[in-house]
Amino acid sequence: MTINKDTKILIVGLGLIGGSYAWALSSQGYEVGGMARRNEVIDYALDRGWIAHGRTDMDPYYIGQFDLIVFALYPQSLLEWLEKNQQYIKKGALLTDVTGVKRCIVYDVQKMLRSDLEFIGAHPMAGRESSGIENADKDIFKNANYIVTPTDANSPQAIDACMQLGKILGFRNISTLTPEKHDEMIGFLSQLTHCIAVCLMTCRDSESFVDYTGDSFRDLTRIAKINDRMWSELFLLNKDELVQQMDLFERQFQTLKQYIIDDNTAGMREMMRCSTEQRKRFEVRKDD
Amino acid sequence: MTINKDTKILIVGLGLIGGSYAWALSSQGYEVGGMARRNEVIDYALDRGWIAHGRTDMDPYYIGQFDLIVFALYPQSLLEWLEKNQQYIKKGALLTDVTGVKRCIVYDVQKMLRSDLEFIGAHPMAGRESSGIENADKDIFKNANYIVTPTDANSPQAIDACMQLGKILGFRNISTLTPEKHDEMIGFLSQLTHCIAVCLMTCRDSESFVDYTGDSFRDLTRIAKINDRMWSELFLLNKDELVQQMDLFERQFQTLKQYIIDDNTAGMREMMRCSTEQRKRFEVRKDD
Repeated sequence: MTINKDTKILIVGLGLIGGSYAWALSSQGYEVGGMARRNEVIDYALDRGWIAHGRTDMDPYYIGQFDLIVFALYPQSLLEWLEKNQQYIKKGALLTDVTGVKRCIVYDVQKMLRSDLEFIGAHPMAGRESSGIENADKDIFKNANYIVTPTDANSPQAIDACMQLGKILGFRNISTLTPEKHDEMIGFLSQLTHCIAVCLMTCRDSESFVDYTGDSFRDLTRIAKINDRMWSELFLLNKDELVQQMDLFERQFQTLKQYIIDDNTAGMREMMRCSTEQRKRFEVRKDD
Repeated sequence: MTINKDTKILIVGLGLIGGSYAWALSSQGYEVGGMARRNEVIDYALDRGWIAHGRTDMDPYYIGQFDLIVFALYPQSLLEWLEKNQQYIKKGALLTDVTGVKRCIVYDVQKMLRSDLEFIGAHPMAGRESSGIENADKDIFKNANYIVTPTDANSPQAIDACMQLGKILGFRNISTLTPEKHDEMIGFLSQLTHCIAVCLMTCRDSESFVDYTGDSFRDLTRIAKINDRMWSELFLLNKDELVQQMDLFERQFQTLKQYIIDDNTAGMREMMRCSTEQRKRFEVRKDD
């Protein structure tokens, strides 16, 4: 399929990401429907024109209208939703998601799905420290990465359509990764960093230090303001990779600590030079 | 003493911080002299009017003119400079510094100093990822903290003058701490955060991940670009405190890892809620 202005799009789950998807798509003239558990959320999106219509109940006729369905739900809710409601989905529809872990979702969904439907995983690497539709913003995708995670079960057409969706949403960089490589990468770049921020923020009572904070501490703890329900679920769904990345970091941290204990200036300086060198790569890309 | 337009100020060491001090002070009409090891650095500062005059050699007559001397040197260089040259300093002059560790500097300097001179420690909590006078900027102090670290050897007049210097330089927040409390605080807020950033940046080859980086990883590794000579020296000069802060962080990190291994959702969520709560304090202050 190719996404065009006749493509009817349903966003299931209108939180921070679902709301931002609805806003971005409707602002470009796409017909967007929304499903959410609470009436206030549907009203919020309707009032702003982010959705053309919406439902809080599982209306078979409503669900059956859409050509493209985006699931912006917590991982477990996505599986439950499909089990109950995939019977109502329009024949031949394309399904995708926004979940931050992939192995545990993609294969299970593809296995359980009706044979005329196709599911292709995607991860919009955008977010904010505050959740909920009231923090939605169609512009959060502008400088962000969008990763499509196809498997052998996916058609080239579905992969193309999913990448096209990323373009429409305005992502700066669109790429594909296997679910396995995605989960390794996200375990390191995203989940490990959140673990570090949470531990730094909670390892001591820093109240008396508030007046002396510099940018370093603020930068390293920005993401310590965290959605505990979502992230604890994501951590467990990627447990093997995350624990491995935590082990890697911990070993390096212990090495540096030992350098300090041993007055090993050469060891410290070598690690810092390597760090400075590696960090440069990330600067160049940021300024693209 | 009170700093006024007749106060002749010498900055010893014209790197990032020394250069920024010279610029900030001269732009407000103070007569600033500079000392550096290289002629090009003196010329750079003279060309821009940041200093009125400068020297690369130890000219006794030159050193003897100044009422206020600010040492913007590496910790060990500061002690060596004073051992050789304190004999030339003007009678009754006030000395201060910009060093990021305090216990190991302040007491040693105060002990070795001529009885008519007074040294009072100060830590301007401002910086950049790039060092050297060419990165100096008189505005880096505007949103930053300035901490004066008096001891029993200091007079109220010197403490006042040092805090006045912080005001003239434009710091947002000026306060006092004992050298001991300062070093504990800085071990946690600044040194530990730099250790974490360096270890995160170096614990694996992240080259293949460059295209997938989100803001989290960029934020947590901004300070991984680090002056290895300066920071390795600072780490060792605060070794006891830093290692203690590293231990605290490491224990918390291991606790979180165990929660993940054990599928302990309640434990994770409790730590994340605490983290979210604690982080709020730092936001309010930032927006002051």
